[in-house]
Amino acid sequence: MVTVIGIAGGSASGKTTVACKLIEASKKWGKVVYLRFDDYYKDLSHLDLEERRKVNFDHPSSVDMDLLYTHLLALKNGESINKPTYDFVNYNRGTEYELIEPGNVIILEGIFTLVDERIRDMCDIKLFVDIDPDIRFIRRLTRDMKERGRSVDSIIKQYMDTVRPMYLQFIEPSKRYADIIIPKGGFNQIAIDMVLAKISSIFKENVL
Amino acid sequence: MVTVIGIAGGSASGKTTVACKLIEASKKWGKVVYLRFDDYYKDLSHLDLEERRKVNFDHPSSVDMDLLYTHLLALKNGESINKPTYDFVNYNRGTEYELIEPGNVIILEGIFTLVDERIRDMCDIKLFVDIDPDIRFIRRLTRDMKERGRSVDSIIKQYMDTVRPMYLQFIEPSKRYADIIIPKGGFNQIAIDMVLAKISSIFKENVL
Repeated sequence: MVTVIGIAGGSASGKTTVACKLIEASKKWGKVVYLRFDDYYKDLSHLDLEERRKVNFDHPSSVDMDLLYTHLLALKNGESINKPTYDFVNYNRGTEYELIEPGNVIILEGIFTLVDERIRDMCDIKLFVDIDPDIRFIRRLTRDMKERGRSVDSIIKQYMDTVRPMYLQFIEPSKRYADIIIPKGGFNQIAIDMVLAKISSIFKENVL
Repeated sequence: MVTVIGIAGGSASGKTTVACKLIEASKKWGKVVYLRFDDYYKDLSHLDLEERRKVNFDHPSSVDMDLLYTHLLALKNGESINKPTYDFVNYNRGTEYELIEPGNVIILEGIFTLVDERIRDMCDIKLFVDIDPDIRFIRRLTRDMKERGRSVDSIIKQYMDTVRPMYLQFIEPSKRYADIIIPKGGFNQIAIDMVLAKISSIFKENVL
Protein backbone atom coordinates (compact mmCIF):
# COMPACT_ATOMS: atom_id res chain seq x y z
CA MET A 1 0.00 0.00 0.00
CA VAL A 2 1.19 3.49 -0.83
CA THR A 3 0.48 6.25 1.69
CA VAL A 4 0.28 9.85 0.49
CA ILE A 5 1.12 12.50 3.09
CA GLY A 6 0.00 15.94 1.93
CA ILE A 7 1.69 19.02 3.38
CA ALA A 8 -0.18 22.27 2.84
CA GLY A 9 0.28 25.77 4.24
CA GLY A 10 0.88 29.34 3.14
CA SER A 11 3.95 30.67 1.38
CA ALA A 12 6.98 30.64 3.73
CA SER A 13 5.08 28.75 6.42
CA GLY A 14 7.78 26.08 6.71
CA LYS A 15 6.23 23.37 4.48
CA THR A 16 9.50 22.60 2.72
CA THR A 17 11.40 22.42 6.01
CA VAL A 18 8.83 19.97 7.38
CA ALA A 19 8.91 17.92 4.17
CA CYS A 20 12.73 17.79 4.08
CA LYS A 21 13.03 16.84 7.74
CA LEU A 22 10.47 14.05 7.25
CA ILE A 23 12.26 12.74 4.16
CA GLU A 24 15.74 12.94 5.70
CA ALA A 25 14.64 11.05 8.83
CA SER A 26 12.50 8.45 6.99
CA LYS A 27 14.87 7.35 4.28
CA LYS A 28 16.47 4.79 6.61
CA TRP A 29 13.14 2.94 6.66
CA GLY A 30 12.52 2.81 2.91
CA LYS A 31 11.78 4.79 -0.22
CA VAL A 32 9.98 8.10 0.20
CA VAL A 33 8.88 9.96 -2.93
CA TYR A 34 8.92 13.76 -2.73
CA LEU A 35 6.54 15.63 -5.01
CA ARG A 36 6.23 19.43 -5.01
CA PHE A 37 3.47 21.50 -6.54
CA ASP A 38 6.21 23.93 -7.66
CA ASP A 39 7.29 21.39 -10.30
CA TYR A 40 3.77 21.20 -11.67
CA TYR A 41 3.22 24.81 -12.73
CA LYS A 42 1.65 24.75 -16.17
CA ASP A 43 3.74 24.79 -19.31
CA LEU A 44 3.50 28.42 -20.49
CA SER A 45 5.63 28.15 -23.63
CA HIS A 46 2.82 29.72 -25.66
CA LEU A 47 3.37 33.01 -23.77
CA ASP A 48 6.44 35.25 -23.98
CA LEU A 49 8.50 36.05 -20.86
CA GLU A 50 6.70 39.33 -20.16
CA GLU A 51 3.31 37.62 -20.35
CA ARG A 52 4.51 34.73 -18.18
CA ARG A 53 5.75 37.15 -15.52
CA LYS A 54 2.23 38.54 -15.22
CA VAL A 55 0.67 35.14 -14.51
CA ASN A 56 -0.84 34.81 -11.02
CA PHE A 57 1.18 31.89 -9.67
CA ASP A 58 -0.68 32.13 -6.37
CA HIS A 59 -3.91 31.03 -8.04
CA PRO A 60 -4.56 27.26 -8.24
CA SER A 61 -5.25 27.55 -11.99
CA SER A 62 -1.50 28.10 -12.46
CA VAL A 63 -0.91 24.44 -11.58
CA ASP A 64 -1.27 21.51 -13.98
CA MET A 65 -3.58 19.63 -11.62
CA ASP A 66 -4.45 17.03 -14.27
CA LEU A 67 -0.82 16.01 -14.69
CA LEU A 68 -0.20 16.00 -10.94
CA TYR A 69 -3.31 13.86 -10.40
CA THR A 70 -2.24 11.41 -13.11
CA HIS A 71 1.24 11.17 -11.59
CA LEU A 72 -0.09 10.60 -8.07
CA LEU A 73 -2.38 7.88 -9.39
CA ALA A 74 0.51 6.20 -11.21
CA LEU A 75 2.76 6.30 -8.13
CA LYS A 76 -0.07 4.94 -5.98
CA ASN A 77 -0.33 2.06 -8.45
CA GLY A 78 3.40 1.36 -8.12
CA GLU A 79 4.35 2.88 -11.48
CA SER A 80 7.21 5.27 -12.23
CA ILE A 81 6.57 8.77 -13.55
CA ASN A 82 8.44 11.39 -15.55
CA LYS A 83 8.17 14.39 -13.26
CA PRO A 84 8.37 17.81 -14.89
CA THR A 85 10.74 20.43 -13.53
CA TYR A 86 10.25 24.17 -13.22
CA ASP A 87 12.50 26.97 -14.35
CA PHE A 88 12.03 29.85 -11.91
CA VAL A 89 14.24 32.17 -13.98
CA ASN A 90 12.10 31.83 -17.10
CA TYR A 91 8.75 31.41 -15.32
CA ASN A 92 8.13 28.24 -17.29
CA ARG A 93 8.28 24.46 -17.22
CA GLY A 94 11.85 23.28 -17.59
CA THR A 95 13.05 21.21 -20.54
CA GLU A 96 14.21 18.37 -18.28
CA TYR A 97 12.05 15.62 -16.84
CA GLU A 98 13.03 13.47 -13.88
CA LEU A 99 12.29 9.75 -13.58
CA ILE A 100 10.64 9.12 -10.21
CA GLU A 101 10.28 5.54 -9.05
CA PRO A 102 7.42 4.57 -6.73
CA GLY A 103 7.79 4.17 -2.95
CA ASN A 104 5.66 3.20 0.04
CA VAL A 105 5.30 6.82 1.13
CA ILE A 106 4.71 9.88 -1.04
CA ILE A 107 5.18 13.33 0.45
CA LEU A 108 3.25 15.88 -1.57
CA GLU A 109 4.02 19.47 -0.69
CA GLY A 110 2.65 22.81 -1.84
CA ILE A 111 0.32 25.67 -1.02
CA PHE A 112 -2.51 24.02 -3.01
CA THR A 113 -2.23 20.52 -1.53
CA LEU A 114 -5.64 20.71 0.15
CA VAL A 115 -7.28 23.09 -2.35
CA ASP A 116 -8.02 20.81 -5.32
CA GLU A 117 -10.57 18.16 -4.38
CA ARG A 118 -9.13 15.36 -6.51
CA ILE A 119 -5.60 15.90 -5.20
CA ARG A 120 -6.83 16.32 -1.62
CA ASP A 121 -8.73 13.04 -1.81
CA MET A 122 -5.52 11.29 -2.84
CA CYS A 123 -3.90 12.30 0.47
CA ASP A 124 -4.20 9.70 3.22
CA ILE A 125 -2.78 12.07 5.82
CA LYS A 126 -3.42 15.80 5.44
CA LEU A 127 -1.08 18.17 7.25
CA PHE A 128 -1.34 21.95 7.32
CA VAL A 129 1.73 23.88 8.43
CA ASP A 130 0.51 27.03 10.14
CA ILE A 131 2.33 30.13 11.21
CA ASP A 132 1.26 33.68 11.99
CA PRO A 133 0.82 35.79 8.82
CA ASP A 134 3.26 38.53 9.94
CA ILE A 135 5.98 35.91 10.46
CA ARG A 136 5.18 34.39 7.08
CA PHE A 137 5.55 37.78 5.43
CA ILE A 138 8.81 38.54 7.24
CA ARG A 139 10.26 35.19 6.19
CA ARG A 140 9.20 35.78 2.59
CA LEU A 141 10.67 39.30 2.66
CA THR A 142 14.00 38.10 4.03
CA ARG A 143 14.17 35.16 1.62
CA ASP A 144 13.23 37.08 -1.51
CA MET A 145 15.67 39.91 -0.70
CA LYS A 146 18.56 37.54 0.00
CA GLU A 147 18.00 34.72 -2.47
CA ARG A 148 16.30 36.51 -5.32
CA GLY A 149 17.78 40.00 -4.96
CA ARG A 150 14.35 41.63 -5.08
CA SER A 151 13.43 45.07 -3.69
CA VAL A 152 11.28 45.55 -0.60
CA ASP A 153 8.70 47.44 -2.68
CA SER A 154 8.33 44.68 -5.26
CA ILE A 155 8.00 42.05 -2.53
CA ILE A 156 5.30 44.06 -0.73
CA LYS A 157 3.49 44.68 -4.03
CA GLN A 158 3.44 40.99 -4.96
CA TYR A 159 2.37 40.08 -1.43
CA MET A 160 -0.54 42.53 -1.45
CA ASP A 161 -1.53 41.88 -5.09
CA THR A 162 -1.59 38.08 -5.17
CA VAL A 163 0.05 36.21 -2.26
CA ARG A 164 -2.22 37.58 0.47
CA PRO A 165 -5.58 37.64 -1.39
CA MET A 166 -4.99 34.16 -2.82
CA TYR A 167 -4.01 32.88 0.63
CA LEU A 168 -7.25 34.21 2.08
CA GLN A 169 -9.33 32.94 -0.83
CA PHE A 170 -7.84 29.47 -1.30
CA ILE A 171 -5.22 28.37 1.21
CA GLU A 172 -6.71 29.49 4.53
CA PRO A 173 -10.12 27.86 3.80
CA SER A 174 -8.37 24.62 2.79
CA LYS A 175 -7.04 24.32 6.37
CA ARG A 176 -10.50 22.97 7.21
CA TYR A 177 -9.61 19.72 5.44
CA ALA A 178 -6.44 19.11 7.46
CA ASP A 179 -6.19 16.08 9.75
CA ILE A 180 -3.44 17.76 11.74
CA ILE A 181 -2.40 21.39 11.97
CA ILE A 182 1.28 21.96 12.70
CA PRO A 183 1.80 25.35 14.30
CA LYS A 184 5.20 27.06 14.64
CA GLY A 185 6.25 26.01 11.12
CA GLY A 186 9.25 23.89 10.24
CA PHE A 187 10.97 24.02 13.62
CA ASN A 188 8.23 22.21 15.49
CA GLN A 189 10.27 19.10 16.21
CA ILE A 190 7.61 17.52 18.42
CA ALA A 191 5.07 17.57 15.60
CA ILE A 192 7.66 16.34 13.10
CA ASP A 193 8.58 13.47 15.47
CA MET A 194 4.93 12.51 15.70
CA VAL A 195 4.54 12.35 11.91
CA LEU A 196 7.80 10.37 11.77
CA ALA A 197 6.47 7.85 14.28
CA LYS A 198 3.52 7.36 11.91
CA ILE A 199 5.76 7.04 8.84
CA SER A 200 7.89 4.48 10.68
CA SER A 201 4.78 2.45 11.48
CA ILE A 202 3.68 2.63 7.81
CA PHE A 203 6.98 1.11 6.68
CA LYS A 204 6.79 -1.57 9.37
CA GLU A 205 3.25 -2.53 8.36
CA ASN A 206 4.30 -2.76 4.72
CA VAL A 207 7.14 -5.13 5.59
CA LEU A 208 4.84 -7.49 7.49
CA MET B 1 11.34 8.34 31.46
CA VAL B 2 7.79 9.52 31.89
CA THR B 3 6.13 11.37 28.99
CA VAL B 4 3.29 13.77 29.71
CA ILE B 5 0.82 14.29 26.86
CA GLY B 6 -1.35 17.34 27.49
CA ILE B 7 -4.74 17.58 25.78
CA ALA B 8 -6.28 21.05 25.75
CA GLY B 9 -9.28 22.53 23.95
CA GLY B 10 -12.57 24.24 24.62
CA SER B 11 -15.55 22.78 26.40
CA ALA B 12 -17.16 20.03 24.29
CA SER B 13 -14.34 20.11 21.73
CA GLY B 14 -13.77 16.37 21.96
CA LYS B 15 -10.82 16.32 24.42
CA THR B 16 -12.25 13.47 26.47
CA THR B 17 -13.02 11.41 23.36
CA VAL B 18 -9.46 11.87 22.14
CA ALA B 19 -8.05 11.02 25.60
CA CYS B 20 -10.20 7.90 25.96
CA LYS B 21 -9.37 6.63 22.47
CA LEU B 22 -5.66 7.12 23.15
CA ILE B 23 -5.87 5.33 26.49
CA GLU B 24 -7.98 2.47 25.17
CA ALA B 25 -5.61 1.81 22.27
CA SER B 26 -2.38 2.29 24.26
CA LYS B 27 -3.05 0.09 27.24
CA LYS B 28 -1.79 -2.98 25.39
CA TRP B 29 1.68 -1.37 25.36
CA GLY B 30 1.91 -0.45 29.04
CA LYS B 31 0.53 1.69 31.82
CA VAL B 32 -1.05 4.99 30.86
CA VAL B 33 -2.10 7.36 33.64
CA TYR B 34 -5.17 9.51 32.95
CA LEU B 35 -5.42 12.81 34.83
CA ARG B 36 -8.28 15.25 34.33
CA PHE B 37 -8.42 18.88 35.39
CA ASP B 38 -12.05 18.23 36.37
CA ASP B 39 -10.82 16.24 39.39
CA TYR B 40 -8.68 19.14 40.54
CA TYR B 41 -11.34 21.79 41.09
CA LYS B 42 -10.57 23.48 44.40
CA ASP B 43 -12.02 22.22 47.66
CA LEU B 44 -14.86 24.68 48.34
CA SER B 45 -16.08 23.21 51.63
CA HIS B 46 -15.82 26.64 53.26
CA LEU B 47 -18.67 27.85 51.01
CA ASP B 48 -22.29 26.71 51.14
CA LEU B 49 -23.95 25.10 48.09
CA GLU B 50 -25.50 28.37 46.86
CA GLU B 51 -22.14 30.13 47.02
CA ARG B 52 -20.39 27.23 45.33
CA ARG B 53 -22.92 27.28 42.50
CA LYS B 54 -21.92 30.88 41.78
CA VAL B 55 -18.22 30.06 41.37
CA ASN B 56 -16.88 30.64 37.87
CA PHE B 57 -15.62 27.16 37.03
CA ASP B 58 -14.51 28.35 33.59
CA HIS B 59 -11.83 30.54 35.17
CA PRO B 60 -8.43 28.91 35.80
CA SER B 61 -8.47 30.11 39.43
CA SER B 62 -11.18 27.47 40.09
CA VAL B 63 -8.52 24.75 39.71
CA ASP B 64 -6.10 23.67 42.44
CA MET B 65 -3.08 24.11 40.16
CA ASP B 66 -0.64 23.65 43.06
CA LEU B 67 -2.00 20.20 43.86
CA LEU B 68 -2.11 19.21 40.20
CA TYR B 69 1.47 20.41 39.73
CA THR B 70 2.65 18.47 42.79
CA HIS B 71 0.89 15.35 41.54
CA LEU B 72 2.36 15.62 38.05
CA LEU B 73 5.82 16.06 39.54
CA ALA B 74 5.35 12.98 41.77
CA LEU B 75 4.12 10.85 38.85
CA LYS B 76 7.04 12.05 36.70
CA ASN B 77 9.34 10.90 39.50
CA GLY B 78 7.72 7.47 39.51
CA GLU B 79 5.73 8.01 42.72
CA SER B 80 2.06 7.19 43.33
CA ILE B 81 -0.47 9.92 44.16
CA ASN B 82 -3.79 10.18 45.94
CA LYS B 83 -5.88 11.85 43.27
CA PRO B 84 -8.86 13.89 44.46
CA THR B 85 -12.29 13.32 42.94
CA TYR B 86 -14.98 15.85 42.13
CA ASP B 87 -18.63 15.80 43.07
CA PHE B 88 -20.52 17.52 40.25
CA VAL B 89 -23.80 17.36 42.14
CA ASN B 90 -22.48 19.29 45.15
CA TYR B 91 -20.05 21.51 43.20
CA ASN B 92 -17.26 20.43 45.53
CA ARG B 93 -14.29 18.11 45.93
CA GLY B 94 -15.47 14.59 46.68
CA THR B 95 -14.72 12.82 49.93
CA GLU B 96 -12.98 9.95 48.14
CA TYR B 97 -9.39 9.92 46.90
CA GLU B 98 -8.06 7.49 44.32
CA LEU B 99 -4.63 5.88 44.44
CA ILE B 100 -2.93 6.40 41.07
CA GLU B 101 0.24 4.47 40.37
CA PRO B 102 2.85 5.90 38.00
CA GLY B 103 3.21 4.90 34.34
CA ASN B 104 5.44 5.67 31.37
CA VAL B 105 2.81 7.89 29.79
CA ILE B 106 0.55 10.43 31.51
CA ILE B 107 -2.41 11.85 29.63
CA LEU B 108 -3.45 15.16 31.18
CA GLU B 109 -6.74 16.51 29.90
CA GLY B 110 -8.68 19.69 30.50
CA ILE B 111 -9.55 23.11 29.18
CA PHE B 112 -6.69 24.70 31.17
CA THR B 113 -3.94 22.25 30.15
CA LEU B 114 -1.97 24.88 28.25
CA VAL B 115 -3.09 27.90 30.31
CA ASP B 116 -1.02 27.56 33.49
CA GLU B 117 2.68 27.96 32.72
CA ARG B 118 3.97 25.44 35.27
CA ILE B 119 1.53 22.76 34.15
CA ARG B 120 2.15 23.52 30.48
CA ASP B 121 5.89 23.18 30.95
CA MET B 122 5.34 19.70 32.42
CA CYS B 123 3.78 18.56 29.13
CA ASP B 124 6.23 16.93 26.73
CA ILE B 125 3.65 16.82 23.94
CA LYS B 126 1.00 19.54 23.80
CA LEU B 127 -2.17 18.81 21.86
CA PHE B 128 -5.04 21.21 21.28
CA VAL B 129 -8.33 19.70 20.13
CA ASP B 130 -10.02 22.31 17.97
CA ILE B 131 -13.53 22.49 16.63
CA ASP B 132 -15.71 25.32 15.35
CA PRO B 133 -17.35 27.29 18.18
CA ASP B 134 -20.90 26.76 16.90
CA ILE B 135 -20.38 23.00 16.89
CA ARG B 136 -18.90 23.18 20.38
CA PHE B 137 -21.96 25.07 21.60
CA ILE B 138 -24.37 22.65 19.92
CA ARG B 139 -22.59 19.67 21.49
CA ARG B 140 -22.67 21.33 24.90
CA LEU B 141 -26.36 22.18 24.50
CA THR B 142 -27.29 18.63 23.53
CA ARG B 143 -25.16 17.09 26.28
CA ASP B 144 -26.36 19.38 29.08
CA MET B 145 -30.00 18.93 28.09
CA LYS B 146 -29.76 15.15 27.88
CA GLU B 147 -27.31 14.27 30.65
CA ARG B 148 -27.93 17.05 33.14
CA GLY B 149 -31.58 17.85 32.43
CA ARG B 150 -30.90 21.56 32.12
CA SER B 151 -33.04 24.10 30.25
CA VAL B 152 -31.97 25.72 26.98
CA ASP B 153 -32.12 29.16 28.62
CA SER B 154 -29.84 28.20 31.51
CA ILE B 155 -27.34 26.59 29.11
CA ILE B 156 -27.27 29.70 26.90
CA LYS B 157 -26.92 31.94 29.95
CA GLN B 158 -23.96 29.98 31.33
CA TYR B 159 -22.38 29.86 27.90
CA MET B 160 -22.64 33.61 27.41
CA ASP B 161 -21.77 34.51 31.04
CA THR B 162 -18.69 32.37 31.59
CA VAL B 163 -17.95 29.59 29.05
CA ARG B 164 -17.54 31.86 26.02
CA PRO B 165 -15.73 34.83 27.63
CA MET B 166 -13.36 32.54 29.53
CA TYR B 167 -12.70 30.56 26.34
CA LEU B 168 -11.77 33.75 24.52
CA GLN B 169 -9.70 35.07 27.42
CA PHE B 170 -7.80 31.92 28.43
CA ILE B 171 -8.32 28.85 26.25
CA GLU B 172 -8.13 30.26 22.72
CA PRO B 173 -4.84 32.17 23.43
CA SER B 174 -3.34 29.00 24.96
CA LYS B 175 -3.64 27.30 21.54
CA ARG B 176 -0.47 29.18 20.65
CA TYR B 177 1.51 26.81 22.86
CA ALA B 178 0.27 23.65 21.17
CA ASP B 179 2.69 21.40 19.31
CA ILE B 180 -0.14 19.90 17.31
CA ILE B 181 -3.66 21.13 16.69
CA ILE B 182 -6.24 18.40 16.13
CA PRO B 183 -9.18 19.73 14.14
CA LYS B 184 -12.52 17.96 13.83
CA GLY B 185 -12.51 16.94 17.51
CA GLY B 186 -12.66 13.44 18.85
CA PHE B 187 -13.56 11.70 15.61
CA ASN B 188 -10.36 12.59 13.81
CA GLN B 189 -9.01 9.05 13.62
CA ILE B 190 -6.03 9.99 11.46
CA ALA B 191 -4.75 12.44 14.08
CA ILE B 192 -5.46 9.96 16.87
CA ASP B 193 -3.54 7.24 14.96
CA MET B 194 -0.59 9.60 14.62
CA VAL B 195 -0.48 10.31 18.36
CA LEU B 196 -0.83 6.56 18.98
CA ALA B 197 2.15 5.84 16.72
CA LYS B 198 4.13 8.24 18.93
CA ILE B 199 2.86 6.64 22.18
CA SER B 200 3.78 3.21 20.82
CA SER B 201 7.32 4.43 20.09
CA ILE B 202 7.57 5.91 23.62
CA PHE B 203 6.77 2.52 25.16
CA LYS B 204 9.22 0.77 22.84
CA GLU B 205 12.01 3.20 23.73
CA ASN B 206 11.33 2.69 27.42
CA VAL B 207 11.60 -1.07 27.08
CA LEU B 208 15.01 -0.86 25.40
